[in-house]
Amino acid sequence: MKIHGTPYRSIWWDAAAGGARVINQLALPFALETLLIDSAQAAAAAIRTMAVRGAPLIGVTGAYGLALALRADASDDALEQSARDLLGTRPTAVNLRYAIEHALARLRPLGAAQRPAAALETAAQLADEDVALCRAIGQHGLPLIEAAWQQRRDRPAGRGVVKILTHCNAGWLATVDWGTALAPIYAAHDAGIPVHVWVDETRPRNQGALLTALELGWHGVPHTVVADNAGGHLMQRGDVDLCLVGADRVTRRGDTANKIGTYLKALAAADNGIGFHVALPTPTIDWRMDDGLAEIPIEERSAHEVLQVQGLDAEGVMRTVQVAASGSPAANPAFDVTPARLVTSFVTEHGVVRAPELGTLLQRKTHI
Amino acid sequence: MKIHGTPYRSIWWDAAAGGARVINQLALPFALETLLIDSAQAAAAAIRTMAVRGAPLIGVTGAYGLALALRADASDDALEQSARDLLGTRPTAVNLRYAIEHALARLRPLGAAQRPAAALETAAQLADEDVALCRAIGQHGLPLIEAAWQQRRDRPAGRGVVKILTHCNAGWLATVDWGTALAPIYAAHDAGIPVHVWVDETRPRNQGALLTALELGWHGVPHTVVADNAGGHLMQRGDVDLCLVGADRVTRRGDTANKIGTYLKALAAADNGIGFHVALPTPTIDWRMDDGLAEIPIEERSAHEVLQVQGLDAEGVMRTVQVAASGSPAANPAFDVTPARLVTSFVTEHGVVRAPELGTLLQRKTHI
Repeated sequence: MKIHGTPYRSIWWDAAAGGARVINQLALPFALETLLIDSAQAAAAAIRTMAVRGAPLIGVTGAYGLALALRADASDDALEQSARDLLGTRPTAVNLRYAIEHALARLRPLGAAQRPAAALETAAQLADEDVALCRAIGQHGLPLIEAAWQQRRDRPAGRGVVKILTHCNAGWLATVDWGTALAPIYAAHDAGIPVHVWVDETRPRNQGALLTALELGWHGVPHTVVADNAGGHLMQRGDVDLCLVGADRVTRRGDTANKIGTYLKALAAADNGIGFHVALPTPTIDWRMDDGLAEIPIEERSAHEVLQVQGLDAEGVMRTVQVAASGSPAANPAFDVTPARLVTSFVTEHGVVRAPELGTLLQRKTHI
Repeated sequence: MKIHGTPYRSIWWDAAAGGARVINQLALPFALETLLIDSAQAAAAAIRTMAVRGAPLIGVTGAYGLALALRADASDDALEQSARDLLGTRPTAVNLRYAIEHALARLRPLGAAQRPAAALETAAQLADEDVALCRAIGQHGLPLIEAAWQQRRDRPAGRGVVKILTHCNAGWLATVDWGTALAPIYAAHDAGIPVHVWVDETRPRNQGALLTALELGWHGVPHTVVADNAGGHLMQRGDVDLCLVGADRVTRRGDTANKIGTYLKALAAADNGIGFHVALPTPTIDWRMDDGLAEIPIEERSAHEVLQVQGLDAEGVMRTVQVAASGSPAANPAFDVTPARLVTSFVTEHGVVRAPELGTLLQRKTHI
C-alpha cells in the first residue's frame, strides 16, 4: 500500500544494496526507517528482535535469509544449517516453517552453483504469493463494503460514508502487502467507495492506535482511533455498518481466536444486528480443532504490558510510564475466542463463506 | 475504608486545623496527600481543579465551603453570594446543588450568630448521610456475594474465592466512604468472604487501574488489573462469578448510563449466564427518562485522553506520552448505555430490585 503516495511493501529486494529491505517495525509509528538485511544473521536478528512481525512477513524474511546464507556458502551442510538457524528464531511460527521447508524442498535437488539464484527466486515468489493471497481477500471482501454503501445510499438520510470497525492490526504491515482485515478496506477505498474506519486502540499493546492508524493514515483512508471500550456505544448509535477483523487461528467449526477483546465487539455487533466478518487466509484454519473455547490455548503475556505504557514524550523521546496503582498485579491474556455463532462470514482468498461452509475450503489449495 | 490499616474518609473535619481535610485526588495514585480546605475559596478551587471528584464528595465539599464562608461573614448577602459562587464551580453537579440548597433552606431562617455552627453541622450530616447510604448499598449487595460464595463452596472443585469484575471507579474515593459498586465488595471482604476483584483498566482515563486498584490495595482486598478487552475472555473461562458496576444515571425502566465500556461487559455477562449488577443510590435514578438509548445525552470528551497517556516514569516523574500514530484523530464518548434487559439487579440503599420493580423505589425517601 502507499506511504504518502508512494507504493510500498513491508519487504522487498534491494538489488543495488544486495539485500532485502524491510520497514523497521520497532521504530513505528513515530519514525519510518528501513533496515537492510544483507546476511542470514541479519535476517535472523530482524525476526528475533521483531523488527519484522506478522506471520507472513516473518516467513518471507526467513526465505530471504536462506537465500543470503547461500550467497556465502551454498553447500549441502550450509543449506541445512542455515535453515535450522532461521527456524530457531521463532520455533512456533507456522509460516516461517512453511517458507523454509518450501525453499529446502526446491533447493536440495539443485547443485550448489544454482542454489543462490533459485533461493532468491523462491523468496520473491513467496512474497508475491502472499500479496496475491491478501489481494484476493480484499477482492472477495469488497462486495461486503459495497453492499453497506448501497444500503447507506438507499436510505434518504443515510448518505455519507461506510463506517467499519476493526480491532488490532491486520493490515499490510503484518503481511507483505494489503493485509487481511484491512485488504477489503483498501480495495474499497481504492475503488472510490467512501469508507471511514473506527480503529480500536487495542490495549494493552495498542497495535490499533499505533499501526492500524498509521497505515490507514499513510494510505489516506479516513479513520478515527477509539478506546476499546467505545465500540459498543458506536454500534448502538448506528455509527458502525460492519466489523472486519483478522484471526490468529480459526477452528473447523469457525470458532475464531483473535486479539483479546474481539469477542466483546462480536457480541455488540450481534446485539445491534451488524455484520461481523473475519478476514483470513485459509492456512489460518486449524482443521484439527473444533471447539475453540475448549481447544485453543490462550497465551498469557507479561503483566508489564498492562501496568506500563510506552509512548513519545513532548521532546520526542520514547518513554515508559506506569499507568496503574503501585503494587497492583495485572493479568494479560493475549487472545480470546469468538464463537462461530457470532461470526457473520469468513472472508478468505477463495471467497466469502459462513461458518457451516468452512469445510468446503478444505479441498482448496493455498500455497502460503 | 482503610489505608494500610487506618480508617479514612475522602473528606473530614479537622478541628485542630480549622478546616475540612480531603485526600488530594490529583496526586493519586502515586502519592497520598491531604489538602486543607480552610475557606470557601479553597473549597471552590478543590472542586474546580478536581482535587475532589465524585458527585457525593463534591456535594459535601460544597457544604463545608459554605460553612467556611459563613465563618468569615454570616450575613444574608454573604450566604447567598457564597452559595452562588460554590454552585458556579460545577453548574451541572446534581449533588452539589442538592447539598447547597439543603444547607440554604436550613440556614436562611437562622440569625447570623447561629449560622456558622449550624452550617458546619449540616455539612457533617450530609457527609454522614452519604456514608450511611453507601453502607446500606453494601449491606444490601452483600447477599449477592454470599450467594456466589455458597455456590462456589457447594461445587466440589469450586472452592476458592468469589471472583467479581468491576469497571471504572465506583469506590469510596468517589463518595465519602464505602463507595457504591465497591461497597458490597468491602462488606464481603470485611465479613471474611474471600473475594478477588478483576479491575478493568477503564481507558481512556484509567480510573480502574489508578483508583479502584489503589483503594482495593489500601484496604487489603485481593485484585488484579486487566485491560478492558479481557473481561469477556475471563467470563468465558469461568473466572467471573458476578459483575458489579456503578451508574451515572439510570432511567425509570432501568437503562443504565455508566462509564464507556460497561455495555460490552453486560453483553458478555449475559452471554455467559453471569449476574450483572448495578449499584446506585436511588437519587441516581432519573424518573423523567424512560428510554436510555434515546434520551440520555452522552458526553464527548477530548481526543487527547485517547491519544495521550499520563503516568509515572522510572525516575518518579509524571509524564504525558503519545500512544497513537501522529496525526490520527480520536473520538472519546465518555459513557454508554446498558439496556435494562442486560441488568440482573439494581443494588440500592433500600434493597435489591430488578428493573421492572424500580418504580417501587419512587416512594422511598433518600436525603442525599
